[in-house]
Amino acid sequence: MRLVIPYILSLIVLTILSCQTGKKHAAAVVLQTDFGVKDGAVAAMKGVATAVDDQLAVYDLTHEIPAFDIWEAAYRLHQVVPYWPAGTVFVSVVDPGVGTNRRSVVAKTKSGHFIVTPDNGTLTLLADAIGIAELRQIDEKMNRRAGSDSSYTFHGRDVYAYVAARLAAGKISFEGVGPLLSEPVVKISYQPAELTDSLIKGTIPALDIQYGNIWTNIPDSLLRRAGYKMNDSIAVQILYKDSLKYAGKMPLVQTFGAVPEGQPLCYFNSLMNWSVAINMGNFAQTHQISHGPDWRVQILRY
Amino acid sequence: MRLVIPYILSLIVLTILSCQTGKKHAAAVVLQTDFGVKDGAVAAMKGVATAVDDQLAVYDLTHEIPAFDIWEAAYRLHQVVPYWPAGTVFVSVVDPGVGTNRRSVVAKTKSGHFIVTPDNGTLTLLADAIGIAELRQIDEKMNRRAGSDSSYTFHGRDVYAYVAARLAAGKISFEGVGPLLSEPVVKISYQPAELTDSLIKGTIPALDIQYGNIWTNIPDSLLRRAGYKMNDSIAVQILYKDSLKYAGKMPLVQTFGAVPEGQPLCYFNSLMNWSVAINMGNFAQTHQISHGPDWRVQILRY
Amino acid sequence: MRLVIPYILSLIVLTILSCQTGKKHAAAVVLQTDFGVKDGAVAAMKGVATAVDDQLAVYDLTHEIPAFDIWEAAYRLHQVVPYWPAGTVFVSVVDPGVGTNRRSVVAKTKSGHFIVTPDNGTLTLLADAIGIAELRQIDEKMNRRAGSDSSYTFHGRDVYAYVAARLAAGKISFEGVGPLLSEPVVKISYQPAELTDSLIKGTIPALDIQYGNIWTNIPDSLLRRAGYKMNDSIAVQILYKDSLKYAGKMPLVQTFGAVPEGQPLCYFNSLMNWSVAINMGNFAQTHQISHGPDWRVQILRY
Repeated sequence: MRLVIPYILSLIVLTILSCQTGKKHAAAVVLQTDFGVKDGAVAAMKGVATAVDDQLAVYDLTHEIPAFDIWEAAYRLHQVVPYWPAGTVFVSVVDPGVGTNRRSVVAKTKSGHFIVTPDNGTLTLLADAIGIAELRQIDEKMNRRAGSDSSYTFHGRDVYAYVAARLAAGKISFEGVGPLLSEPVVKISYQPAELTDSLIKGTIPALDIQYGNIWTNIPDSLLRRAGYKMNDSIAVQILYKDSLKYAGKMPLVQTFGAVPEGQPLCYFNSLMNWSVAINMGNFAQTHQISHGPDWRVQILRY
Repeated sequence: MRLVIPYILSLIVLTILSCQTGKKHAAAVVLQTDFGVKDGAVAAMKGVATAVDDQLAVYDLTHEIPAFDIWEAAYRLHQVVPYWPAGTVFVSVVDPGVGTNRRSVVAKTKSGHFIVTPDNGTLTLLADAIGIAELRQIDEKMNRRAGSDSSYTFHGRDVYAYVAARLAAGKISFEGVGPLLSEPVVKISYQPAELTDSLIKGTIPALDIQYGNIWTNIPDSLLRRAGYKMNDSIAVQILYKDSLKYAGKMPLVQTFGAVPEGQPLCYFNSLMNWSVAINMGNFAQTHQISHGPDWRVQILRY
Repeated sequence: MRLVIPYILSLIVLTILSCQTGKKHAAAVVLQTDFGVKDGAVAAMKGVATAVDDQLAVYDLTHEIPAFDIWEAAYRLHQVVPYWPAGTVFVSVVDPGVGTNRRSVVAKTKSGHFIVTPDNGTLTLLADAIGIAELRQIDEKMNRRAGSDSSYTFHGRDVYAYVAARLAAGKISFEGVGPLLSEPVVKISYQPAELTDSLIKGTIPALDIQYGNIWTNIPDSLLRRAGYKMNDSIAVQILYKDSLKYAGKMPLVQTFGAVPEGQPLCYFNSLMNWSVAINMGNFAQTHQISHGPDWRVQILRY
């Protein structure tokens, strides 16, 4: 009996441990690229991640980033990352410089999210909005899919998806990614949201594409600080570089239905940023407005 | 010894329970929107669901519903819901009235599926085909993503994805969604499949978009009841509102290959509804036929 | 006491077994079709798979195969299958002959992957590149979604997704699919990569669509065997059937950045096949080049 009881106890402990292990959750992996989904590139990346750990959940952010548009990649991360749990590992591959000397990095944000990406500007808006806690360069000697050494053109599959899956599955720690970098991330220059005596300035970082609404980087707090309140009439200017593309007035409302169909309005979007739209219409198409760091917006005091 | 045995037994029971809990499966969450997948809106919804329970499986029905097309949203649910296991939680966000007073509901169908949606007509076809067992209004005070109180324009993320994930993960019961509603769901008016002495009437609820085939809501049983059988010639009329858009005869066949390439045919589609096509061609494009509650079809007895 | 101990032991063993069972991993299911994702067809397939086993991970390869383009389906499988773990079950539904007598099969490759597909040419490139270890015809009497007997037009949902899910979940063995076939798979004819005295011949199986790069089936090893090395100038001809569509010279480089913007180059792509591109440009669009078994490429010795 004296031998049986300890044996039973150790069996129980092992069982509990094995159950706990079975329940330890891997973090999700979320992929963003400019590859589109017409060919097999994204599916190959998911295969690589699944081969690392077949219990990983792999999601898509979007694969419809316009080819080589690093700004848009930066904006989509900024829009989506905060809604995922800390620990989620994002991969962003918009990489015009693939094969050149740009650094391949994993950033850990101050919110505890990871982003695996070429360091080419993709991290601009996350760095400004959330902050980068730590940046590591991927050590490609240690963190590269077996058998991919002679492939130079698909880092997204051979390095980024592989490292992301290993990190999400707990097969490497963040330290295991590679050496700590002391220089800040590469940034794209743009007009930050800014209030001066005479006006509020900002950028059109993106359109709400499906509906043609104009999104800006100007938070609701800045309008409130400037003294604007709901139902005020707002004087808007939209510029491409230094050329005026639109000027007009419209009410600040809580819902599109507050103005008649076809009329312009402004509102705070789902990121609580000031935005411009036409009720049941397409503002961007109607007024030929696009987006990116060269598209600026101003609210004039009058 | 007397103390050890009960202790061991309780450990075992706890272990079994913890294993069972680990194995209790969450239901799948299936998302449908008119957002497209070019921006981050759908990915933000998935992040919210994953933050509720990182073991949830989140799938897409489609995000390519034409903007504001509630009828199409209703049809896609009707087409897909029956193939998923009971308990699956669908989210449908086609919501021209976002921010207005339309009710946000969760419907439980008689088949045991859940649909989280604005009650704006989306449930029309499921209500007619399967039946709604119970309808509850979402109590947004209880069921809303933390920190989203001041956002008015993205119910899909802040309320619908959040409630759906909590329901699928078992964190709330159906009763926990909110109060029971006694009024029926909002319905869009359309021509139901109908057999009279002289003809069969129905609607073109959708096209088989990829191939341009015309789908109707007329079940195979109605044609059989009217006496039609395989290889019969069928006299077809297609109308937009009250205007005739197509009239012709074609054989009722089991497979497209039964007629030469380029020839019209009719058949029972994968939902066992009577449908019209051109073998290796595009009927909708050739004859400029579209779909929706204003597009009707008739089979004439002759 | 003598009765309690064995009872405890058996409880422990059952617990361990149930935990182990809970941890047994199903293989992933990966879907490819020409259905697009605007309607509910793909989502219905995923519902059928989830109803077989709600713990299955179901991924998309692509649903944007051009309608009826079997060659492209064959190429996408060839491009993606090797990156997934052995045991993964692929479903490919590009099926112009649905409802006719073409065989429905499951192929097991020599790499241990499974492909569920109509045997209409889809397996051409996998058979040549990896090899088919065993081919079985689906026994539709045994392996068909309950209640689908009278539906003739959606094999992808009623048979293929259902069989794939059962195989991936371990509910049937490969033998349980149906009878072994001794005839080889149906193949599409094309120019294999070939080195003769005077030239290298090959096919353009696909474009790198997003960027307009020309991919060929000529492996790096063949160019090396012919004596070419990095930075050599390569004389290229592209033909549609027997008509010359492009002739030019370009350097063989490791990265796009090795030539100025707008200049042609050739390189080894992510499958280590010889490919042609314009740095920051679109070769296919610029020179009106497409792909498929009728598009051939030649490298001339000079």
